[in-house]
Amino acid sequence: MTQKKHVALEDAANIEKRVRDSFDRQGLMRHLGATLTVVEPGEVHITLPFRDELTQQHGYFHAGATTTIADTAGGFAGFTLFPAGSSVLTVEFKVNLIAPARGDHLEAVGRVIRSGRTLTICHLEVYAVHAEQRVLVAVGQQTLMCMHDRPDERG
Amino acid sequence: MTQKKHVALEDAANIEKRVRDSFDRQGLMRHLGATLTVVEPGEVHITLPFRDELTQQHGYFHAGATTTIADTAGGFAGFTLFPAGSSVLTVEFKVNLIAPARGDHLEAVGRVIRSGRTLTICHLEVYAVHAEQRVLVAVGQQTLMCMHDRPDERG
Amino acid sequence: MTQKKHVALEDAANIEKRVRDSFDRQGLMRHLGATLTVVEPGEVHITLPFRDELTQQHGYFHAGATTTIADTAGGFAGFTLFPAGSSVLTVEFKVNLIAPARGDHLEAVGRVIRSGRTLTICHLEVYAVHAEQRVLVAVGQQTLMCMHDRPDERG
Amino acid sequence: MTQKKHVALEDAANIEKRVRDSFDRQGLMRHLGATLTVVEPGEVHITLPFRDELTQQHGYFHAGATTTIADTAGGFAGFTLFPAGSSVLTVEFKVNLIAPARGDHLEAVGRVIRSGRTLTICHLEVYAVHAEQRVLVAVGQQTLMCMHDRPDERG
Repeated sequence: MTQKKHVALEDAANIEKRVRDSFDRQGLMRHLGATLTVVEPGEVHITLPFRDELTQQHGYFHAGATTTIADTAGGFAGFTLFPAGSSVLTVEFKVNLIAPARGDHLEAVGRVIRSGRTLTICHLEVYAVHAEQRVLVAVGQQTLMCMHDRPDERG
Repeated sequence: MTQKKHVALEDAANIEKRVRDSFDRQGLMRHLGATLTVVEPGEVHITLPFRDELTQQHGYFHAGATTTIADTAGGFAGFTLFPAGSSVLTVEFKVNLIAPARGDHLEAVGRVIRSGRTLTICHLEVYAVHAEQRVLVAVGQQTLMCMHDRPDERG
Repeated sequence: MTQKKHVALEDAANIEKRVRDSFDRQGLMRHLGATLTVVEPGEVHITLPFRDELTQQHGYFHAGATTTIADTAGGFAGFTLFPAGSSVLTVEFKVNLIAPARGDHLEAVGRVIRSGRTLTICHLEVYAVHAEQRVLVAVGQQTLMCMHDRPDERG
Repeated sequence: MTQKKHVALEDAANIEKRVRDSFDRQGLMRHLGATLTVVEPGEVHITLPFRDELTQQHGYFHAGATTTIADTAGGFAGFTLFPAGSSVLTVEFKVNLIAPARGDHLEAVGRVIRSGRTLTICHLEVYAVHAEQRVLVAVGQQTLMCMHDRPDERG
């Protein structure tokens, strides 16, 4: 595992700042109304409150909303372990939608399973939260690529 | 292939109306600015014009936007072959993001590979279109479920 | 979760017998040299000792051997929760190969994430074991279908 | 597409020899009884005759046999486009099993969708052939990695 090595190079506050700056540059996260709620080395959570603008035809959260925050949580979970000056690319992901996504908000959890120099693998989960209940609605797996020569910025 | 049997029960205009009505009930498609451009038995295309509200941190289309219209195009491609009175559920999908999604708009193509009574498998492609150029930016595969006892409506 | 309901209908010894009988009918498991090592409700392990007949071009376990026992462990993990008189079908699976599969043997772990009436989702892991070391070499996700009207037998 | 550049460096006979040598070093292909039937730049076919040693519990080809030759066909399809002196690694693959795999033999087709310097994406298909009939039984998608500094040999 190369996780510890990367993390040693950078303190936790810097990592969180790097992730939050990148998240804030994503027009789609703002447009959906998503917020970053947990940023730790190897793990990121994203919360998305229900709104009619996020629905599919039955009035639940659209699978696209569910998988968008899952992909983003995984991408940033990987990014927390990348060296400064690099950026992250989703190579591919796969998601199973295992229960109707209805509730007050969704919470996506991205967690690094293995972090390598080039490729990083993440486990993805999305929960629908309604009052006291927290139901697993999606589970997935994602492959990320670290672009060492590509800073995380626009242009 | 059971495709022909289903299609025989319903004329093409009815199928298109059923798909357009369902699409129009999806709050997320409207919020992203997506439109249905092709609806044929076993194939559906969705177009998504570029806006800053759809971007990731580098200013290209966010992978979530790309995969959301891919999933939706596939879901409706399957739905065109389902019997009237049923609805469609995405069981799972997998997408590879193979090139940066930059351009004037994205075009997602969902195409049924195999349509069964319970499960339907679709091939997904997304192209980024810029001026004359049309570049394949994502390719995927999707499993859908036909809910025979669940009409496609809210509530 | 419908797991508990199914399990209540059948005792653990019966479940294990049902799984072992089905495993023994798989010519491929015998041909590869695989054995069932854990059979519990919702979880099955399969062990595969190293032999030159299982290698890829570099002399490690072939990805096909790794994924075959992963798929089989997941399939039987799902099957432990299915009602008597049914059989199991793999709808699809996805596997990431995250480290070279070298060692004295492989151990595949299939674990049910969600068991529904029609579809069951499993998490798959494969470890390469060498002397004291146990390294995660593959991780995956699988969708199974319960065929209620199809007993698990030949012909 | 970088395909043409690579191919230009090496003639088709050399590519075929490189693939056949690597295939012959795979103990598992020999143990299953698989043969390489087509080797072209960007496309490889593998044939697997039916034997009881390849079956699942119902007596058809085991999903593990089906996916093993699919993964291998895709891996070598990618390898045809890699530079001499490199080797190929499967990063991940996903397969849908869409019909029972019964017949006299299986034929796997691996085809490159996009070949990049580091990552290559393939489309995978497996057909079951019985007398005159050829039925699509599996369809998948695969991500490969080119290891530029790792020759394709044992040790």
